[in-house]
Parts: sequence; structure tokens; C-alpha cells
Amino acid sequence: MINGHGDERLNDGKKPFLNFSNTVWYGADHTLLGEHLSRSLVDCMRHYPEPDATTLRKMIARRHGLNEESIIVTNGPTQAIYLLAEAFAEKRILIPSPAFAEYEDAARLYRSEVRLIAGNTPISEWPLDEVDVCYIATPNNPDGHIISHAELMLIIDKYPKVTFILDQCYANYTTVNKIKPSDSKSHPNLISFWSFSHAYGIPGLRIGYIVAPSQYSEAIRRLVVPWSVNSIAIEAAKYILIHPAQFTLPIRKWQRSAQELMTKLSAFNEIDVLPSTTTFFLIKLKKGTAAALKEYLATEHNMLIRDASNFAGLDASYARITSLDEASNNQLVNAIALWLEQQA
Amino acid sequence: MINGHGDERLNDGKKPFLNFSNTVWYGADHTLLGEHLSRSLVDCMRHYPEPDATTLRKMIARRHGLNEESIIVTNGPTQAIYLLAEAFAEKRILIPSPAFAEYEDAARLYRSEVRLIAGNTPISEWPLDEVDVCYIATPNNPDGHIISHAELMLIIDKYPKVTFILDQCYANYTTVNKIKPSDSKSHPNLISFWSFSHAYGIPGLRIGYIVAPSQYSEAIRRLVVPWSVNSIAIEAAKYILIHPAQFTLPIRKWQRSAQELMTKLSAFNEIDVLPSTTTFFLIKLKKGTAAALKEYLATEHNMLIRDASNFAGLDASYARITSLDEASNNQLVNAIALWLEQQA
Repeated sequence: MINGHGDERLNDGKKPFLNFSNTVWYGADHTLLGEHLSRSLVDCMRHYPEPDATTLRKMIARRHGLNEESIIVTNGPTQAIYLLAEAFAEKRILIPSPAFAEYEDAARLYRSEVRLIAGNTPISEWPLDEVDVCYIATPNNPDGHIISHAELMLIIDKYPKVTFILDQCYANYTTVNKIKPSDSKSHPNLISFWSFSHAYGIPGLRIGYIVAPSQYSEAIRRLVVPWSVNSIAIEAAKYILIHPAQFTLPIRKWQRSAQELMTKLSAFNEIDVLPSTTTFFLIKLKKGTAAALKEYLATEHNMLIRDASNFAGLDASYARITSLDEASNNQLVNAIALWLEQQA
Repeated sequence: MINGHGDERLNDGKKPFLNFSNTVWYGADHTLLGEHLSRSLVDCMRHYPEPDATTLRKMIARRHGLNEESIIVTNGPTQAIYLLAEAFAEKRILIPSPAFAEYEDAARLYRSEVRLIAGNTPISEWPLDEVDVCYIATPNNPDGHIISHAELMLIIDKYPKVTFILDQCYANYTTVNKIKPSDSKSHPNLISFWSFSHAYGIPGLRIGYIVAPSQYSEAIRRLVVPWSVNSIAIEAAKYILIHPAQFTLPIRKWQRSAQELMTKLSAFNEIDVLPSTTTFFLIKLKKGTAAALKEYLATEHNMLIRDASNFAGLDASYARITSLDEASNNQLVNAIALWLEQQA
């Protein structure tokens, strides 16, 4: 899906919006990273990157106690999804929904049969003996749904013939018992992919990685196009790995601000707020459409939210909101109040 | 092919080599581009790129009098090759060789039947009625072979059922009658792909584009992964398009230095220099291997050449050399003389 992802108005190059529309950590401090990249910039431009980002692969592998063959550096998490869809072409694929649209788009591109189920169905009822591959994001985009580590590992072990692909883009957006890259060592049917875009606030650079057990990694690696991750993205990822303290996500504070925003929005009779324990969440409008609200907020208040109607399983009444700081959140609440008055 | 492309020793991060091993314009002045990108860096990092680089697509289209649907911005020319290989999966593909290894690797990955012919075979003898797709690079990597515009257009029109894919990475490396992106308008079976890496000296950024007539462009565009070109690469390409005068390639001077280097190397009895009118060329060693010469030059003289033995149709005696400035070229000639003495 090329269009409809959110973040799009910012691309017109007009004046900045309050951006509730994507799920990237808005507060990342890029001062030191920016200085480092500025110094490296010309050198990075002038030389080919390593064809498969070998040095970075080794760094990631060492960090997680994995062997480097199990790491595939990707041009952002979306390329990870397409590589995996290609590696698992023509399979039966289960996607709990609502879910990030690219899982389904990529699976269909590679001729897989896609089966959607409601993500809030108890895992014990998922038709896992009828599929080859199952996507799970936890926390899940767009609804923030979290499946516990224990429950996940149980189901992964129970269905050894199913390949579980865990989208870990939001791994740092929760404090509860988390998936680790090294979980693939004890669960040979578990592939995960990880993002530098979200928690580190660098979606413009396009870099992430796949962790794949040995039974899959060779097949995935042969699909990797040489030099597909650029030198500056590689340099940024290395810097982040070497300087983790500069990129600590204040997750409890961000979660708290999200909870406060959810509480305030819940006070409107015309809005259902769907429960989420992470930093973004869905709202369902009882009147009007998310598209209309989005348009109003953009035009009248310089704010951008995500019309979530194009997520499978959702309809025109759903929007996704990512919490910003308290002042911005309050502006959003006030703006939505004005819109609701107009609808009355 | 992940390894074996040249440029690899530079990636160890050790002290710089005189680099005759890749085909990138070594003299590009990146001062102003670097300053511009430094200023844009943090903003580029923090925001998603346009999913398919729409603004840049429009700029390229306008520049060449094409419609924007015919332009596909790619993550470097190598991604162009893989996208095209995927769009033309399971076809019969003709590759005049020696040729860039990725044409064949990509074609085989997508289950095409590859037929290699010697690139110096007269075009009139190419088996074009037995294939679906034909790759042509002009100037060709690694041997610098050039096919004239008139001859190309004649053959493209003569075989309307064959899709001709023209690799134009080295379009600016010659002064003779050149292919233009707009040639696709009058030749509906002509696809070309273009690079910002080579003539502008920015292989680290990974950006290029495909020009595809309408009969192909939709099929190629649906294979494009959203956000596959990063924000900084897009910003650099825009800057280059807006400031062409900063990136004028002194092609006649570079060609002249290459001719002088070829003449000097021709004086060695133990070396055949294969004729080339562009800025890189092949040598064939009558004694010893290119791998041994490469190792000697790297270890003893901090110089890197390209062992060309892994190009289809070549053997262990071939190396590719890209001309640098006269002083560097003379150092190379002297170093090769020392090596040849040792072989005697």
C-alpha cells in the first residue's frame, strides 16, 4: 500500500502539524546522533555500504547472543515484511486483525492465501492447524493489543509446524514481559523483526532487522538485494547500539500521558476509546467519520491523526491516535470537542 | 551476489586505499551537497520519506518530458535490476557478457532462463527471436563496450516483442550519441534504469530510477516496497537535479586520463589492455592471476583494483581498472611494473 499510511500531510513541505498520526517516538533527542552523522556524511555518501551490512549484523548478533547468520539487516521494517512474504510465498497465512496493512498486501503479492481473524479472539481458538504462517505484532498496531510472553511461547511451541512472525516494531512501547531476539534460539519456528524507526525516532532512515532461526535464514538472505541499506542508515544504527543511554525511551511517562489522553477522550459521549496499555490507541466515533475528523483537525487546527478505516476489520468510524506531550494532547482534546459540537 | 563486487577492502575501516576498484566518479565535489544534507539531516531522519518518492518522481519526469507514472525511484540501480527481474520472472533472458553479475543473479532468483552471449558478437547475430528480455549496458561494465544509439534503436524496433532493458548507470561516461530517458516514449519495448551513484559519486546513498513505458510501469510499481528509498537519498537526488552545474562530470579529461593509463599499461608485454573509450577498462594478465595482483597491490601499495574473474565469460586473468588522476595512475603503473618483475 503506497498511500493511506498517515504522516502524509507532513510530506507536502508546508508548516508543521501536531502529529498524532504515526507511532514514532516524538521526543527522541537527535542532537548527538545528528552531529555524528554530519561528520560522517560525506564519507558515507562516497563509499558503497557493505553489501549486507555485515559489521552491523555482527554487532546486533553479539548484542543478543545470536550468531550473525540469523540476522538480516533490512531497509526498514517494511522491507522485512516483504522479504518474509517472499520467503513464505504461496502459503496459508493467518493475520489477527486489525493489523498493519503491509502484512496482507505483501502476502497477497506473493500469492499467499490470507486468512484474517479478529485479534481479540482467544489464542486457543485461532485456526493454527490450518495455516503455515501466523503474523503477530505485540504491542499491535493499530490497537495496542498486547499478548503476554508466556502465552505466546506456549502457542509457538504447541504449533511447531507453523512459522510465527513477530513484528517487534513496538517492543519498547511496553514494560511488560517482552519478547527478546534470543527467543528464536529456543523456538526454532519463531522469526521476529525489529525496527530502529520507532523507539529511536528515525523513520526517515529506513533500517531494521530480522532475526531468523537457521532453518529459515539462508532462504531469506538469498532474497536480499546487495547494498539495499544505505551507509547513513547503517552508521546511525551502529551509533545507537554503541550509545544506548542517549536513546532511553521514557516509556512509563509516555504511557501515562496516553492513559490521560484516553481518559479525557472517554469523557465524550460520542467517542468510544478502545483500551490500550501502550502509547497509541484507537477511537471509534459514534457519529461522523474519522476521515471528516481528520480533515477538520488538519484544516482548522494543524493537527494530524490517522484515519484507521483502511485497517482490515475496521470501518470509517475508527481513528488511531498516538499520544504526544500533555499540552499537545490537551489541544487535541479541545479541538475534538469543537468538532463534536459541530456534529451535534 | 553479496561478496566479490570490489570496494570491499575500504569497508574494513582501515586507512584509505587508492581505489581503482569501483566505477564511481572519484572527483565529485560534495562540499555544497554535504552542507545541504547536514542542514536537512535531523528533519530527514525524523520523518517518513514519501512512500514512493512522489515529489522526486515528478521532478525526474518533468526534467525528461515524461509522465510521472513511467518513473520508479529505486534504492540504487541494483534494486532496479531486482525489481525488473521480478517483473519479468520466468522469462527467457539474453545477457551479452561480460556483464554486471546482478543481471544474471536476479534473473535466476526469479526463475528466468538465462542465455549468455559474447558481448562483442555483432548485434545482427544475437538470438533475439528466441528470448523475451535482453539486457544491454552501454557503456558496459566491466569492459566499457559502447553500442551506438542508432544501432540500438534499430534493433529495439526490429524486435518489438523483446523487452530491452538498458542499464544507463554509465550514461555520462561517454560523449557519443547517448540514450535518453525519453527514448522510451518512441520505443514502447525499451526500459532504462539510471543511477545517481556513479556520475555524482554517491554510491553510499543508494538512489536511482527506472524509466518504463506504460505497458510495463504498473506491473513494476506494484512490486515497490513502500518507503524503500530513504529521506536523505531523496533529498540528495533533489539537490542534484536542482543544482546540475555543481555536478558537471569532466568526462573528456577523465577519458583522456584513462587513455593515457591504458597506453602505459599496454607497454607491458605481460598485459593485454582491452580497448575501451570510457573511464574504466579490462586488462588480461598473460602471467599470474588478477587475484594475486590485487592482493599484491593492496598489501604492498595500498591500492585496490577489481578482480574481474567473477564476471561471466571472464577468467582468473582479468582485472578491471578505473582511471584516477594522473599521479595516482602513475603510481599504479609503477606498482604493477614491480609486480611483473617479481613474476619474471
